[in-house]
Amino acid sequence: MSRRTVRTICALALALIAAACSRPGPGGSGEVRAAIENLRETGLARERAYAFLERITSAGPRLTGSAQAAAAVEVTRQIMEELGFERVHTEPVEVGHWVRGDVERAVLAAPPSGTAVPLAVCALGGSVGTPAAGLTAPVIEVRSLDEVASLGEAVKGRIVFYNRPMDRRTPEPFAAYGAAADQRVGGASAAARQGAVAVLVRSLTFRTDRYPHTGMLRYDPGAPRIPAAAVSTSDADLLSALLKKEQEVSVTLRLDCRDEGRVVSANVVGELTGSERPDEIVLVGGHLDSWDLGTGAHDDAAGCAAALEAVALLKDIGARPRRTVRAVLFMDEEFGGTGGRAYAASALRAGERHLVAAESDRGGFVPVGLAVGGREAGARTRVAAYADLLRPLGVSFIVPGGGGVDVAPLIQGGAVPAAVMVNAQPYFDVHHSALDVASSVHPRELELQAVILAALAHILAQEGI
Amino acid sequence: MSRRTVRTICALALALIAAACSRPGPGGSGEVRAAIENLRETGLARERAYAFLERITSAGPRLTGSAQAAAAVEVTRQIMEELGFERVHTEPVEVGHWVRGDVERAVLAAPPSGTAVPLAVCALGGSVGTPAAGLTAPVIEVRSLDEVASLGEAVKGRIVFYNRPMDRRTPEPFAAYGAAADQRVGGASAAARQGAVAVLVRSLTFRTDRYPHTGMLRYDPGAPRIPAAAVSTSDADLLSALLKKEQEVSVTLRLDCRDEGRVVSANVVGELTGSERPDEIVLVGGHLDSWDLGTGAHDDAAGCAAALEAVALLKDIGARPRRTVRAVLFMDEEFGGTGGRAYAASALRAGERHLVAAESDRGGFVPVGLAVGGREAGARTRVAAYADLLRPLGVSFIVPGGGGVDVAPLIQGGAVPAAVMVNAQPYFDVHHSALDVASSVHPRELELQAVILAALAHILAQEGI
Repeated sequence: MSRRTVRTICALALALIAAACSRPGPGGSGEVRAAIENLRETGLARERAYAFLERITSAGPRLTGSAQAAAAVEVTRQIMEELGFERVHTEPVEVGHWVRGDVERAVLAAPPSGTAVPLAVCALGGSVGTPAAGLTAPVIEVRSLDEVASLGEAVKGRIVFYNRPMDRRTPEPFAAYGAAADQRVGGASAAARQGAVAVLVRSLTFRTDRYPHTGMLRYDPGAPRIPAAAVSTSDADLLSALLKKEQEVSVTLRLDCRDEGRVVSANVVGELTGSERPDEIVLVGGHLDSWDLGTGAHDDAAGCAAALEAVALLKDIGARPRRTVRAVLFMDEEFGGTGGRAYAASALRAGERHLVAAESDRGGFVPVGLAVGGREAGARTRVAAYADLLRPLGVSFIVPGGGGVDVAPLIQGGAVPAAVMVNAQPYFDVHHSALDVASSVHPRELELQAVILAALAHILAQEGI
Repeated sequence: MSRRTVRTICALALALIAAACSRPGPGGSGEVRAAIENLRETGLARERAYAFLERITSAGPRLTGSAQAAAAVEVTRQIMEELGFERVHTEPVEVGHWVRGDVERAVLAAPPSGTAVPLAVCALGGSVGTPAAGLTAPVIEVRSLDEVASLGEAVKGRIVFYNRPMDRRTPEPFAAYGAAADQRVGGASAAARQGAVAVLVRSLTFRTDRYPHTGMLRYDPGAPRIPAAAVSTSDADLLSALLKKEQEVSVTLRLDCRDEGRVVSANVVGELTGSERPDEIVLVGGHLDSWDLGTGAHDDAAGCAAALEAVALLKDIGARPRRTVRAVLFMDEEFGGTGGRAYAASALRAGERHLVAAESDRGGFVPVGLAVGGREAGARTRVAAYADLLRPLGVSFIVPGGGGVDVAPLIQGGAVPAAVMVNAQPYFDVHHSALDVASSVHPRELELQAVILAALAHILAQEGI
């Protein structure tokens, strides 16, 4: 081999290094690039996603099985019809129907001042009620389910007060939430097994205020069902301070929440049918149901609005990708995902293949990146070819990930999960509380999310995974 | 050369490619890595930056030269003393003192309804007032300074109404602002040269609401000085719609703003003196002065608070970097940067060398990346070695850039500009308006910014540029 050949090999290697390491230049198809530019111009010129969000939240708090949830099904089906979505339909789902009732009160039964001091509480989703007159018991503060188990007899006849805050030092709020949520989800049954009569759980938020934050609990089949309420962080601090000073602090708790059996609700489905492979589906979705203290604006009218706007924008610019882009607004994410399971089962029956499942359920906040999952990096690579167009919209990274309660069955069936990642710092300020209303959503931040979702769906529906 | 050698060269080339392209592993010094972890834990455990911001905004609206600005100088000097900053001092700066006065009113002089319709306006910073009785003139709407020049005589005796909105389709709000701000800065003189008697300028925000947004104007020496006011976007739309329907629309404008000459104000300076090279300085700063419609929370109590907290956190964790980390709170950013020029001149006299100048003046929003400028990539590379620790705090990119009005003279003198880049989408909602108050700042987002600023300063003060 000549020295010239060696030099050529070396030069080639260096060129390869340079090519592989340089900032990726514009890649991907020119047609898709033009479409993404067009989506940006069309989307940002107004804030239509927010208008959809307002129409959804105007239906009210959309607890699974409620009249408001049914109204939201009708509102969004109508939006899809107005926008000219194709194959618009609702898909029946049998769901539970828990109601909060009219009374949720907690009062310090024998406060040092001698006067009744109310605590800001709300029933946890799925909780049983108390007797009508309420129940009164001394409070015992704990930090974990393990601590309750270790306390044994000491818990008997008491109200267990779970007071482990979300760890502020964890930068990522979802991680801090995940590490604290076991108290809310499993705290009641863990306490009931030791003979507790009720539980109070510190609200899951970084903020110190008087808004209680609700959320689902799960009763273990083997444990008695005892009432469970969230207490605001401000009142949790007050109660904790009092417990340090007083020998015994008792609370009277009254909840008249209850289960009202099963009813029929629905997912809402509409699409832009693929031009070449209509049965290969890129799903964009959110969930229509919400908690009932606010109107579920960030959680998850925002996700539904982003999905509606993503498909609407593709129609606006006259796009018709090869594969189907379908908006699915799921019912019953908050009480366990029956809508997601029903949808996956019907897709299986219809012989549809879901390539991508992109659920938006992280709030309507400003986009910061994309998560595109899947065992192979194919879909991620396709999207990354458009990084230069997505970056100005706020996409600063593209990492593996995505997923959500409603799309989990599709992902188990082989769909690639995907999601627009957003700033989560303020999410738990409003999450599951009275603060989760339309005015807490920034119209332009939500629109950016919808534009990126439209671009993501277009890339993957056009180019595959 | 043997085939084995060629294979070795090829393998080497491939290994080089792989190494160069893989996600960078943990680099940088172990001591600095430990410090950054410590900054994160210490900073996020509370929200002290926000407490500093509240103390600054409690001084009130801090117009350059005002009593409130003087109070803020004293408050922040005191904070530095309390925190044990070193070489704390104030540095005198001679500044202008424009006052808004008590009256700023605009009324449609002859509205179709026959009743007076007020427009929400505010004087632009630096504007001359109107006669006490006001001035009344027909309005002419334009989109640009060029259009005014081309209209010539048609403008004479009229109020020129600049109504080119920030372009919503531009994803980056600072870019959209920059492309529209010429109307506010130069509109008055451009109109005056054609004989206009006053100008109204559409407020620079994406939002449609009734808050006027002020900001500095610049009178050209060669043109008459005419009164200039910002009009809220909602009223700008109303006025524009009216001008399309009516033959003539007149407005009566009353402003009693005025210039009150020059006064002595101050920059506030304190530091953590370097252990080895005390005269090499990494500056972190913001500006103390603000507009007067709100209390300058995002603009720029947030930047001052982040600078104070960054140095305070370094002290908390017991860090003592080789070079000095200095917090400088500048006076008079909004009226042209006299504080920044005075500081640079005094640094030059003292023989100090400013390695890095990191001004925070983009609002107290959630961090998304870092800008580290300079002709050479040295400083950027040093910071990038810690990308894995900065990423969870919100730093998704490290790009060339940085800079600001106050640090421009230092950068001209060779300092490397740097800045924590934040989500700018909501910035112009509040910018220079009554909405820029403490409650519009998210305490945890601001703290994240301060932690990152502390980490950035520590890296560069320890390792140089």
